[in-house]
Amino acid sequence: MKFAKVTIVMGSQSDWATMKAATLPLQELGVEFTAGVVSAHRTPKRLAEFAGRAKEEGVKVIIAGAGGAAHLPGMIAAETVLPVIGVPVASRHLKGMDSLLSIVQMPKGVAVATQAIGEAGAFNAGLMAAQMLAIEDEALSQRLQQWRQKQTDAVSFELIDEA
Amino acid sequence: MKFAKVTIVMGSQSDWATMKAATLPLQELGVEFTAGVVSAHRTPKRLAEFAGRAKEEGVKVIIAGAGGAAHLPGMIAAETVLPVIGVPVASRHLKGMDSLLSIVQMPKGVAVATQAIGEAGAFNAGLMAAQMLAIEDEALSQRLQQWRQKQTDAVSFELIDEA
Amino acid sequence: MKFAKVTIVMGSQSDWATMKAATLPLQELGVEFTAGVVSAHRTPKRLAEFAGRAKEEGVKVIIAGAGGAAHLPGMIAAETVLPVIGVPVASRHLKGMDSLLSIVQMPKGVAVATQAIGEAGAFNAGLMAAQMLAIEDEALSQRLQQWRQKQTDAVSFELIDEA
Amino acid sequence: MKFAKVTIVMGSQSDWATMKAATLPLQELGVEFTAGVVSAHRTPKRLAEFAGRAKEEGVKVIIAGAGGAAHLPGMIAAETVLPVIGVPVASRHLKGMDSLLSIVQMPKGVAVATQAIGEAGAFNAGLMAAQMLAIEDEALSQRLQQWRQKQTDAVSFELIDEA
Amino acid sequence: MKFAKVTIVMGSQSDWATMKAATLPLQELGVEFTAGVVSAHRTPKRLAEFAGRAKEEGVKVIIAGAGGAAHLPGMIAAETVLPVIGVPVASRHLKGMDSLLSIVQMPKGVAVATQAIGEAGAFNAGLMAAQMLAIEDEALSQRLQQWRQKQTDAVSFELIDEA
Amino acid sequence: MKFAKVTIVMGSQSDWATMKAATLPLQELGVEFTAGVVSAHRTPKRLAEFAGRAKEEGVKVIIAGAGGAAHLPGMIAAETVLPVIGVPVASRHLKGMDSLLSIVQMPKGVAVATQAIGEAGAFNAGLMAAQMLAIEDEALSQRLQQWRQKQTDAVSFELIDEA
Amino acid sequence: MKFAKVTIVMGSQSDWATMKAATLPLQELGVEFTAGVVSAHRTPKRLAEFAGRAKEEGVKVIIAGAGGAAHLPGMIAAETVLPVIGVPVASRHLKGMDSLLSIVQMPKGVAVATQAIGEAGAFNAGLMAAQMLAIEDEALSQRLQQWRQKQTDAVSFELIDEA
Amino acid sequence: MKFAKVTIVMGSQSDWATMKAATLPLQELGVEFTAGVVSAHRTPKRLAEFAGRAKEEGVKVIIAGAGGAAHLPGMIAAETVLPVIGVPVASRHLKGMDSLLSIVQMPKGVAVATQAIGEAGAFNAGLMAAQMLAIEDEALSQRLQQWRQKQTDAVSFELIDEA
Repeated sequence: MKFAKVTIVMGSQSDWATMKAATLPLQELGVEFTAGVVSAHRTPKRLAEFAGRAKEEGVKVIIAGAGGAAHLPGMIAAETVLPVIGVPVASRHLKGMDSLLSIVQMPKGVAVATQAIGEAGAFNAGLMAAQMLAIEDEALSQRLQQWRQKQTDAVSFELIDEA
Repeated sequence: MKFAKVTIVMGSQSDWATMKAATLPLQELGVEFTAGVVSAHRTPKRLAEFAGRAKEEGVKVIIAGAGGAAHLPGMIAAETVLPVIGVPVASRHLKGMDSLLSIVQMPKGVAVATQAIGEAGAFNAGLMAAQMLAIEDEALSQRLQQWRQKQTDAVSFELIDEA
Repeated sequence: MKFAKVTIVMGSQSDWATMKAATLPLQELGVEFTAGVVSAHRTPKRLAEFAGRAKEEGVKVIIAGAGGAAHLPGMIAAETVLPVIGVPVASRHLKGMDSLLSIVQMPKGVAVATQAIGEAGAFNAGLMAAQMLAIEDEALSQRLQQWRQKQTDAVSFELIDEA
Repeated sequence: MKFAKVTIVMGSQSDWATMKAATLPLQELGVEFTAGVVSAHRTPKRLAEFAGRAKEEGVKVIIAGAGGAAHLPGMIAAETVLPVIGVPVASRHLKGMDSLLSIVQMPKGVAVATQAIGEAGAFNAGLMAAQMLAIEDEALSQRLQQWRQKQTDAVSFELIDEA
Repeated sequence: MKFAKVTIVMGSQSDWATMKAATLPLQELGVEFTAGVVSAHRTPKRLAEFAGRAKEEGVKVIIAGAGGAAHLPGMIAAETVLPVIGVPVASRHLKGMDSLLSIVQMPKGVAVATQAIGEAGAFNAGLMAAQMLAIEDEALSQRLQQWRQKQTDAVSFELIDEA
Repeated sequence: MKFAKVTIVMGSQSDWATMKAATLPLQELGVEFTAGVVSAHRTPKRLAEFAGRAKEEGVKVIIAGAGGAAHLPGMIAAETVLPVIGVPVASRHLKGMDSLLSIVQMPKGVAVATQAIGEAGAFNAGLMAAQMLAIEDEALSQRLQQWRQKQTDAVSFELIDEA
Repeated sequence: MKFAKVTIVMGSQSDWATMKAATLPLQELGVEFTAGVVSAHRTPKRLAEFAGRAKEEGVKVIIAGAGGAAHLPGMIAAETVLPVIGVPVASRHLKGMDSLLSIVQMPKGVAVATQAIGEAGAFNAGLMAAQMLAIEDEALSQRLQQWRQKQTDAVSFELIDEA
Repeated sequence: MKFAKVTIVMGSQSDWATMKAATLPLQELGVEFTAGVVSAHRTPKRLAEFAGRAKEEGVKVIIAGAGGAAHLPGMIAAETVLPVIGVPVASRHLKGMDSLLSIVQMPKGVAVATQAIGEAGAFNAGLMAAQMLAIEDEALSQRLQQWRQKQTDAVSFELIDEA
């Protein structure tokens, strides 16, 4: 079980198809990360152990993705004061509406920084992790601003001839 | 922390207004119970400890009620093989739709016996606990059948004169 | 019409694609079961007859799956004191949200132990049936704990190299 | 248990607050009716008996109102070829969305003529019952047309001075 | 523009894929019907003319199917006292939830007999039309009972060997 | 039946409580208006007559508010090429979600300029009517810009001392 | 960055698949238009600049399409008094329900003329733009009436032989 | 316009009733904050100016609350690389479901750390802001752990005698 500044966990192996999008902005911004499977329901003890030790192992931000009755982000948040970013993975039948509500509707006292359903949310989770780390890392903040500028520049106004 | 055959837990003190309805059918059917607060998010260790010890302490069925990102029933179910009955407590803004989806949409491998949103669901949780215990308790099964018969007899066809 | 300790019924032949997942945990845990079609709407008398006779025929737990205006679980529950586990089969247009609400929103006095929409819910229905039977069957309870342990062990933390 | 040409049944006494609106158009149009409580879940045998005998007792149209997992209209429709008009009574938490889906999403082969949620739906159920009877009753059809004309005439275009 | 006892109208040519299911029970039960396109939005005058003349042309029951802001059934119902059966055709993005609410949530005074979303609802619309006609047509009522009996008999309890 | 440049219609007298908010920006911006009741379901002929004559009577923009199966805006739009602004009035049980979908989900070929549910939507309908008229009325356009500036100026950043 | 009387903007290049439907009625009605990408989130300054200059550049009506947290139409409306027509582009997971609510639920004081989700809404946005321009352009109004008449004529009542 | 390490903005004065809950954990944890009104729709320039200058003015984390078409959090996030925490304020008719989707469903490239609907979400926004600041502030991290411990200790298991 490896740890990095940003540690990405997810409820099952199949969530990786969605969650790997979180690694893109981290790679582009030069933020170290690692990723693994921690199931709230199948491995609750691993969850508690991971969340309990994360801070002392040097983790700064946790990204947690899960689908359906997505308890993983909230249960990790219950075991650590590190910020936890939650990603609702799209579920088969309810398309992630269940995942979203299970992650975002946390009670007073334990917060999860919830992102959009699916791959866009996973990508933004990586970005948000970098933004949190950049609060006290001016070099990273500069890289973020350049990244955002490139993103802005990449939007060209003119549509294809067809218009 | 007291235990009884049927142990009712809920995410917060305020859930008791809903969850006490679970005690009505248990009292009427002569099934012993106890009730307490275990918060998945504020007391995750108590949750794990309670669920882990419940079986050896003589608990047979657990009723768990929670609202919003209602992780309590599913997280208890993750820590025990005792049947867990989940009650979605109505939430302030989404009226329990969030609670319902968070409780019922469990992944393959960890099941929660979900009831209706709110007081009716809490009442039925007590009833369902009795039905589970009655599988191997013929006397209780008889009392259940009498209780159901009384319930049937209490429905009178004729409406008030106004009709 | 065959009966076993766990009897699985469903609203139509097409529900079998979903409901057969309920047989997997029962097989793995060595719990006998049988399965058949009972339509609340097309065969209401068979429903009443089945539910009325189930207990004396030796059935201990009933699993009922249906989609859309899924009346089957609730109507069986109305005719027996055996615990009924409900599985919302995904419907074509509303993806099982209709099935879920029709099954779970039972009124005070008749309870259904509702599971998740679709195949995961069917699988968990089998598991929950075993958990109910294990209340008074310590050997089955042991097998359940081993099954759960194997499930836990099968979750490996490390992701593929790609991460 | 009295029967009339139009017989109104509802799942519980408390539904009468909503369902009595069904009697208004029937009274105004001179169609005889009666009303009573038949619970799908608490009195399934009464339901089957009522629905099975309704036609030979002279009932022509059945209006059935229920809330939550509203199985009453569909289960009556399963036991008779008389047209059944369903009224989704507003439920406490989900405001009748559960009632509506439970009533309207009937499978191929058993139909319910579903109306709007709540009092407006109950009123329209009475109206629809009259419209069905008017298919072969020209005098009633004339009264319906006059009733509709009066309704049209009662809508005055001008708003109060405030506008 | 042909008329028959049961006249089926729909908002667009593309709705026919869904609505032709309405003709199956009518054919099996020997009830004459015809079908055509009447768009509430593109041909409002045809709608008013059709609905206004339907009764004198011998139409007894109207089936109207539409999707999205499905105004067709309600607007026809506003122009005739004949019973109108509404079928919510599944819409592309909201899967018929918009169609259902637009059809069923009629105000007090103009009723639509709403069926399920999509093909099952269209089929049941045909059946419900026959049930309405059977109120005063004992021969048709007998055929309906035989049809229902065949439907019941076609449900065989035993599942394939696989179970 | 009076007409003005901006004519506001609504499905029933009770919608006026919501719809009168549409008159506020019109009054402040000096745009003449009138308001009346036209029910799609109770007065379909008046609807067709009103919509058919509106343009020649000098109406430039129509605002139409309705609740539930809110057919009024779409049916008016079907009868005129004048722009129709739709306001979903909040319904009793579904809180205007039904009204919104019934108004906004118009098929290709007949458009409604839909606003928010309830009073805010009614207010904005008045504003949007003025914006449409201002396309070719520079004086009104100037008044709109001043109105917007005043609105901007009225937002003061500082919160009360309590913060 | 080109401008025309009707300027169509959208949140991303991928929205063009939906938004190009807006150009069809504009082409058929002889209304000049242009189209480009302006992202509320990736190019907020371009958005403000575009919206701020649009009126003086001769734009009369703006059509804005976006999906998900679709802020584009509302933010453009906040920066101009020109009428803004909003098109909710269907999102991947929530099918445009998120887009619709983000666009239509504008607060009092800034209005968006919202259309249906997806391609039908984009088409109608083009139509509504023409309707707005036709308020003071009688020739265009005539072309609109002819266009609508052709649309009406294209709906033929009779269904294919199959019926 | 004052700035502090944590700056809380909201769409209107009326949101303060919800948003002031964000100040509670900040006060308890000794984190300086300020709060003000910035409307995305009524004061878009102030929004851009505030978000553009926030970092250089010493702001570390922004909390933004809004209701309905809640564009404020996403539009601020578009103008700064500081982490933005979004709070969906409950809306009048849709109870904050619109606010939630408008805030959370951000596209790839601009992230918002979304909290629960209403007061609980506002409270947790304050907590999450502190958690972000604690990443590089060990003293604050210690205070957070003590705060969480006190919260845990405050949950007492035993229910009142009534149980």
